[in-house]
Amino acid sequence: MSKKLIKREENYSEWYNEIVSRADLAENSGVRGCMVIKPYGYAIWEKIQAELDRMFKETGHTNAYFPLFVPKHMFEAEEKNAEGFAKECAVVTHYRLKNDEDNPGKLIVDPEAKLEEELVVRPTSEAIIWSTYKKWIQSYRDLPILINQWANVVRWEMRTRLFLRTAEFLWQEGHTAHATKAEAIEETEKMINVYADFAENFMGIPVIKGFKTAYERFAGALETYCIEALMQDGKALQAGTSHFLGQNFAKAFDVKFTNPEGKIEHVWATSWGVSTRLMGALIMTHSDDQGLVLPPKLAPIQVVIVPIYKGEEQFKIVVDHAKEIQAELKALGISVKLDDDDKRKPGWKFAEYEMKGVPLRIALGQRDIDNGKLEIARRDTQEKKIYNRSELSEIVPKLLEEMQVNLFDKALTFQKEHYTEVNSYDEFKDILESKGGFIAAHWDGTEETELKIKEETKATIRCIPLENKQEEGVCIYSGKPSSQRVLFAKAY
Amino acid sequence: MSKKLIKREENYSEWYNEIVSRADLAENSGVRGCMVIKPYGYAIWEKIQAELDRMFKETGHTNAYFPLFVPKHMFEAEEKNAEGFAKECAVVTHYRLKNDEDNPGKLIVDPEAKLEEELVVRPTSEAIIWSTYKKWIQSYRDLPILINQWANVVRWEMRTRLFLRTAEFLWQEGHTAHATKAEAIEETEKMINVYADFAENFMGIPVIKGFKTAYERFAGALETYCIEALMQDGKALQAGTSHFLGQNFAKAFDVKFTNPEGKIEHVWATSWGVSTRLMGALIMTHSDDQGLVLPPKLAPIQVVIVPIYKGEEQFKIVVDHAKEIQAELKALGISVKLDDDDKRKPGWKFAEYEMKGVPLRIALGQRDIDNGKLEIARRDTQEKKIYNRSELSEIVPKLLEEMQVNLFDKALTFQKEHYTEVNSYDEFKDILESKGGFIAAHWDGTEETELKIKEETKATIRCIPLENKQEEGVCIYSGKPSSQRVLFAKAY
Repeated sequence: MSKKLIKREENYSEWYNEIVSRADLAENSGVRGCMVIKPYGYAIWEKIQAELDRMFKETGHTNAYFPLFVPKHMFEAEEKNAEGFAKECAVVTHYRLKNDEDNPGKLIVDPEAKLEEELVVRPTSEAIIWSTYKKWIQSYRDLPILINQWANVVRWEMRTRLFLRTAEFLWQEGHTAHATKAEAIEETEKMINVYADFAENFMGIPVIKGFKTAYERFAGALETYCIEALMQDGKALQAGTSHFLGQNFAKAFDVKFTNPEGKIEHVWATSWGVSTRLMGALIMTHSDDQGLVLPPKLAPIQVVIVPIYKGEEQFKIVVDHAKEIQAELKALGISVKLDDDDKRKPGWKFAEYEMKGVPLRIALGQRDIDNGKLEIARRDTQEKKIYNRSELSEIVPKLLEEMQVNLFDKALTFQKEHYTEVNSYDEFKDILESKGGFIAAHWDGTEETELKIKEETKATIRCIPLENKQEEGVCIYSGKPSSQRVLFAKAY
Repeated sequence: MSKKLIKREENYSEWYNEIVSRADLAENSGVRGCMVIKPYGYAIWEKIQAELDRMFKETGHTNAYFPLFVPKHMFEAEEKNAEGFAKECAVVTHYRLKNDEDNPGKLIVDPEAKLEEELVVRPTSEAIIWSTYKKWIQSYRDLPILINQWANVVRWEMRTRLFLRTAEFLWQEGHTAHATKAEAIEETEKMINVYADFAENFMGIPVIKGFKTAYERFAGALETYCIEALMQDGKALQAGTSHFLGQNFAKAFDVKFTNPEGKIEHVWATSWGVSTRLMGALIMTHSDDQGLVLPPKLAPIQVVIVPIYKGEEQFKIVVDHAKEIQAELKALGISVKLDDDDKRKPGWKFAEYEMKGVPLRIALGQRDIDNGKLEIARRDTQEKKIYNRSELSEIVPKLLEEMQVNLFDKALTFQKEHYTEVNSYDEFKDILESKGGFIAAHWDGTEETELKIKEETKATIRCIPLENKQEEGVCIYSGKPSSQRVLFAKAY
């Protein structure tokens, strides 16, 4: 930890890459577009998983596991979905390698082991799951089915960035089946609310809930609900989506049920997911020019204790005392690391844990022990304060809570400051370049205008906010009438 | 739940298939050799995962995630490993599908999207992980690396069976890097002990720890430690393996470090894994002719309450009381399901939860409430007993504990009864056919004999037990001298 991090204002994109690398979160692998999630990054992902999993189960869902591969005929069954993902699928065509007779020690694909039907590595699992649900559903008594899956998926992206866009990523995908349209819509909305709740109260990321436009919708959905977050460079990031799929997949896979009146109907579907992309949102929402900043609820290490000492005798005394502090905090369910590595200087450790976003740092020396004091530094405000040792069990949970709230409030203030209503295209372009953020503007509702604006400015419609205020206006681009503002932004 | 299960003695293999299906654990998917793990089966797997994960972390390991794909040149780097898995790999050759112009609505592989280098879907991750470790390791200070990964892997098996042998399966794979040979061997042994501890004390499955013969070893390992369990049909099942990989992968991927004396050396490696195969071991160790039997520590539902009632008024009283019981047990950390489905008869529910292996069933009626009594049925012994309602909080945990111990003891007795020492090949063949189980016999140590015996009898050497008794003898097949008995069995 010697060289300083590049500053956000100098090069935001490079700042992001450096944090991912220097906080030991992830790195590029030897496989094009695929990342290695390193232990520290994965520990954060595990916290995300655990909390989401708890929330899914609390809302009546169970986990299951479906195959990685989708046979081509199944993949193409729902046409829009197939069309949407066909251009970016990894395809398995053979099931064996053999020795290359011309190159000893090398292997080649065995042409005799060509599959009769190609297998697509799942880019999403609607197809394989609905081909399975067909076997499970006969009657309304078999409904609803409320299943989630934690899995890896592959989408062959050409330009990849760690966490934000990778060829393989980890995610969860919920797939539910319902007897009525109303129930399916209720589920779709319930899950976007779960995501928003999770993003805001656990990750400290304020989000705007909304609908996607038809153009931005998930391939095969009738309606896509999303949560949109705002990064510090003024660009938006889609952090989670929940899709109302109507009867599209039920029709494609012929999934019908007998309703209580004995009538046969197609089943209604939803699907919803969040991915390791959330790691990117996390990093870009809270971090600063000193490195990663983590909301305490997501921090694998919530408190680090750094002993300050001279000589072996002091070392022993300080470390013994630090162990007592550690035990006291652990008993409160707080994760504490005592860094008693004798080969590293305190200054190095301070920089290291700052880079890694550890919420609280306790520096403990002989004099602190003698005086019954403690120095605690907060990662978010960089504030250092002296507390009485006797207050430890009250002050640490209190500081962690304050920090969790503070990070959310700070991000919310930023989001509000970067929300601008504009009434002309010039104003739109001006705000987009000067300030960024969400731009609320009237739009005529046509894909034509949406695409023109995208082409000319790179801004896309992030969402039509839920319960949007209805107001008369004219489209900033076409001048045609509009009944509501939609949110534009440049996006990740 | 009408038709009875086929009996083990009638058709053991079919009995297994029926339990997997009727207890709702898993099913075959529309993808050759790949299974769907259903919610109830997956809930058991989650219990397995959670406990193993806890044990791995307690022994100093952290989780991380490495890519699904292995580029061919990386895959072939460690020759023995490559040779061992080449015959069963799924190979990705293209990254795009396109519309089939001759068949509207159909897709074909886009020949223009052929990969320059094929990607192997990981059958195991040593190659991709060691190509990564190369970047992480320079000095002895970077060692040890103690990482585990929870992942899916693919091995193109021709004959598949749910959980026991599937093309795609879920597993964990630990991959560690060490500065010395001794330390790597210590790790290998530590992890086989973790597996044995887990199998016996959590899953109630007694295991024998041993070494694999050179022929049965993991491709690329210098030594494979294993735990072997015995199923009720007398066949063995390998339940976990821990490999000492020596410097093979370090040499293949050129992973070196500077030792404390400044000398450059190759790194020492281990890898170890267990998979969803454990589900097969679980089912076949404990279950009976009535269905699945689950050790309480693994049961997603530990207690089910079935209300017995006539009419709506009784229903309400009984269900209210059952809710009190449920709350009381939940407070003790016990998972309880109250099945108050009014559309199903108690008899149907009894059979259903018996099939699903729920450890304890409480049948609760108006008379029980009036008398302050409870009827509790144990799944393992099928014993029903009346207890005082007031004893609930003591008796239920006690019964669950007794059942956990009883299942292990019963399986251990079976294993001991099916362990036979033989001194001739005739006796060997006779025991193999009449009784099965582990057969301890002298072997001359050659692969030739090992393969002959396998060919003639289908029995393989399951392991050379750790700390095996050394005794002079002659090989049952070749008559050549032997210094110890090894364990043969037919195996899954």
